[in-house]
Amino acid sequence: MTAAPRAVVLLSGGVDSTTTAAVARAYGCEVHTLSFRYGQTLAVELERAARVAEALQVASHRVVPVDLASLGGSRLVGDAHVDARGSAIPATYVPARNTVFLSIGLAWAEVLGARFLMFGANAVDYSGYPDCRPEYVAAFEEMANLATRFTTEGDRLHVLAPLVDLSKADIIRLGLALGVDYGLTHSCYFPDPQGRACGACDSCRIRLRGFAEAGLPDPVAYRP
Amino acid sequence: MTAAPRAVVLLSGGVDSTTTAAVARAYGCEVHTLSFRYGQTLAVELERAARVAEALQVASHRVVPVDLASLGGSRLVGDAHVDARGSAIPATYVPARNTVFLSIGLAWAEVLGARFLMFGANAVDYSGYPDCRPEYVAAFEEMANLATRFTTEGDRLHVLAPLVDLSKADIIRLGLALGVDYGLTHSCYFPDPQGRACGACDSCRIRLRGFAEAGLPDPVAYRP
Repeated sequence: MTAAPRAVVLLSGGVDSTTTAAVARAYGCEVHTLSFRYGQTLAVELERAARVAEALQVASHRVVPVDLASLGGSRLVGDAHVDARGSAIPATYVPARNTVFLSIGLAWAEVLGARFLMFGANAVDYSGYPDCRPEYVAAFEEMANLATRFTTEGDRLHVLAPLVDLSKADIIRLGLALGVDYGLTHSCYFPDPQGRACGACDSCRIRLRGFAEAGLPDPVAYRP
Repeated sequence: MTAAPRAVVLLSGGVDSTTTAAVARAYGCEVHTLSFRYGQTLAVELERAARVAEALQVASHRVVPVDLASLGGSRLVGDAHVDARGSAIPATYVPARNTVFLSIGLAWAEVLGARFLMFGANAVDYSGYPDCRPEYVAAFEEMANLATRFTTEGDRLHVLAPLVDLSKADIIRLGLALGVDYGLTHSCYFPDPQGRACGACDSCRIRLRGFAEAGLPDPVAYRP
């Protein structure tokens, strides 16, 4: 009997990354989740990610600090000056965020000798984000294998975005089939101090529409 | 008259990255340097990088914290368990370090609207490092343009490693022609508390051989 292959999964604690971690587990992988303290205004994300990791019984969960806030450039790191009017890319896009997070995931995958690096990129809901497109994922995988000892030692790292072409409703159905508790997850850009979702931001609206299309109630708390 | 194109340059304060910053300046770029506090045992690196940036009169110099030490995997972040015997890759290789640093440089380049992202990769002295090869640089550039708004907005970011095929002696000659003061730089893996170089580690030996081949004295202090 051979050991389970290892997978490093980027985990924000939202619907997509949580479902991706469940997919990695369903593949039979030993799952290692990675979250980032990157200056996001949403500390609740890190709490939810840790609870999700625990619920999924992952082999390890780590939080890596990386100070993207000091570079600015996005509403999500508190840069209120970003004005996305006239651009196809939303104000909540953080410059090169997926690339920075995947690169740190690549470092961790190389240390662990992982076979898979997985993340929850989705080209349906986030069509305006360049780093959520399938051609980006393929280019990252190509670069990653040239960057590391995987190639030089005859192995290959597979960079996977298993949800990239799924609708939110399909993602939720898949996650439920894999036993995900979406009550632990977090999506809102503007939660109140109790962590309750606003129900009105882009992220909440995408989430709520997904649950509605799946014909299911959303188990998280929304502020009254 | 058009504005000077912007270049983001990764700067460790060593010979190669310092020369790369001087090359960017010689290209007529507005130069923005970026250093990383990544858990390196060598804090002296960051001091020297700041002095180099000042001497080169760069437009901006930033230090971004990113905690690679918590992932382990290299002697350079204090992981004494790394054993490179039997591997073609040295124990001082930090997993995916260039990729992580270039990714953060990419974020900064996107915020600044920079045209160039440059770093001091060298395939002559660091032939065992997979992320110092020209094919890696090309793959990173390809990925970077798919990752960001450069492509979607019709521009292209150029990822350049202008020293990749030069010997250390040629790098030093080039830097001197561009006015670099190598007395400000730092290369040693094991400096003493005064910051003086050991003269014996791999990095010192490569540096000393470069100055010897160039027929020049090395201006930095070595411990007696």
